[in-house]
Amino acid sequence: MRQVSFDLSYFQFSIIERSEEGLMNRYKAIIAYDGTNYVGYQVQKNGNSIQAELNKALKKMTKGLYIPVCASGRTDAGVHANGQVIHFDYPSDIDINGAKRALNSLLPSDILVKKVEKVDESFHARYDVTGKRYLYRVSTTQAIDPFKRLYTLQHPYRLDLEKMQLALNDIIGTHDFTSFCSTKTDKEDKVRTIYRAEVYRDEKNNEVCFMFEGNGFLYNMVRILVGTTLQIGNGLRPVNELQRLLEVKKRSEAGPTAPPQGLFLDEVFYCDIKID
Amino acid sequence: MRQVSFDLSYFQFSIIERSEEGLMNRYKAIIAYDGTNYVGYQVQKNGNSIQAELNKALKKMTKGLYIPVCASGRTDAGVHANGQVIHFDYPSDIDINGAKRALNSLLPSDILVKKVEKVDESFHARYDVTGKRYLYRVSTTQAIDPFKRLYTLQHPYRLDLEKMQLALNDIIGTHDFTSFCSTKTDKEDKVRTIYRAEVYRDEKNNEVCFMFEGNGFLYNMVRILVGTTLQIGNGLRPVNELQRLLEVKKRSEAGPTAPPQGLFLDEVFYCDIKID
Repeated sequence: MRQVSFDLSYFQFSIIERSEEGLMNRYKAIIAYDGTNYVGYQVQKNGNSIQAELNKALKKMTKGLYIPVCASGRTDAGVHANGQVIHFDYPSDIDINGAKRALNSLLPSDILVKKVEKVDESFHARYDVTGKRYLYRVSTTQAIDPFKRLYTLQHPYRLDLEKMQLALNDIIGTHDFTSFCSTKTDKEDKVRTIYRAEVYRDEKNNEVCFMFEGNGFLYNMVRILVGTTLQIGNGLRPVNELQRLLEVKKRSEAGPTAPPQGLFLDEVFYCDIKID
Repeated sequence: MRQVSFDLSYFQFSIIERSEEGLMNRYKAIIAYDGTNYVGYQVQKNGNSIQAELNKALKKMTKGLYIPVCASGRTDAGVHANGQVIHFDYPSDIDINGAKRALNSLLPSDILVKKVEKVDESFHARYDVTGKRYLYRVSTTQAIDPFKRLYTLQHPYRLDLEKMQLALNDIIGTHDFTSFCSTKTDKEDKVRTIYRAEVYRDEKNNEVCFMFEGNGFLYNMVRILVGTTLQIGNGLRPVNELQRLLEVKKRSEAGPTAPPQGLFLDEVFYCDIKID
């Protein structure tokens, strides 16, 4: 379906020429993807992944080399990204705009390379992360919208946004987020710092949108925060509930994990400077 | 994925009670659907269709009866609808809001019943059509958007909208649209009347949108009109091209058929009165 075709010969030629010197060049890329048709970011046995598609595209670009790709972190099946960040080492010095076009011509239409940048070889897409922003979209219209089913939680109920925002204010700062972490995690340290936790009406799209910025997020943390805060907005839990859950440190006391399709990894921050 | 469950016993009971009297009640429904995962509106051997899903839902509602469904017309694989119209005869008198909820609880999340209405048994969703409105969405941003791939043609080129509108003005009125009809059609009469043919920038969504209203549309007519008008907007064809094509009456001289995913059956008109 992609309408752009691209001559790869330039890249292939330059690899053959340069790889003998053993030079490696590190590139950072910002990518967006619709996670609907993937088992998640990371390669898995049970289906296709974003990472596998990136590997395939780079293999074609290099005429057969396996180029490992490292991302800022995983995203789950059905979760989307507006601004996931990856890095990879390429065996030749490539033009960044040409590389972007080449990758986009080789990737399926649900994965987009938005930007390619040459970086110092010390840069690491995962270890250097200083923060991330996630969005969670909730469609609140009475009529369930067939065109939003893959990109929002459809929640046709009244929400008290004022109460929800008051509740979210309690998670700002550094806290132990054990109550908001899937028990399937392998992480010991559950302390994270949240810089921003906001809920607002997105009039343009007739949605309610959550925005979280923090130095790191535990497994399912955003989705459990959303699931619990929606129950506060529905009047099923009191406004001080997030505060209480931070104290009890029990996943079983928090609300449900909101479904994946509303979640977007919006931006990844490095060195406290926004990279986009 | 649907969050609404529904008690069907009321409908099932009333059928058993009423069907012995042999009464039939005709209902009109407005439905929206995301056509991505279907071979088209109509039942076909090679895959799932909207019509088959409607039949399945009605079969569950009636505990096993086959209820034929008639639509205003077919839509192709990948084509969407905001306002397709169907009619069906139900063996009992049903509450229209209850029927809407019941159908929505039984249909997959990419098909939505927006409205159910009881109509006179003389009403026919296909024969009584007096006009239709189609929309065609074109995303013109430089960066191809992975979230719009199923709902727009991604066309990252400059378009001269003024020229395109001038060209479209030539198709208003009653003309022979042979040049804009797939040769696969079985229709002899290629004369149709176009009431409105507009192209405009949809700033909210960063798109260019086509809107066509007419008394009827031939097979692929909107998509060939869009494909040809985009070539006028790109400067590949002169502004009087649609006028010339109406006169030559040859499909081979017109532009390409624009892909299905940008096309939406927006509204169907009956008796010159908009039903929504």
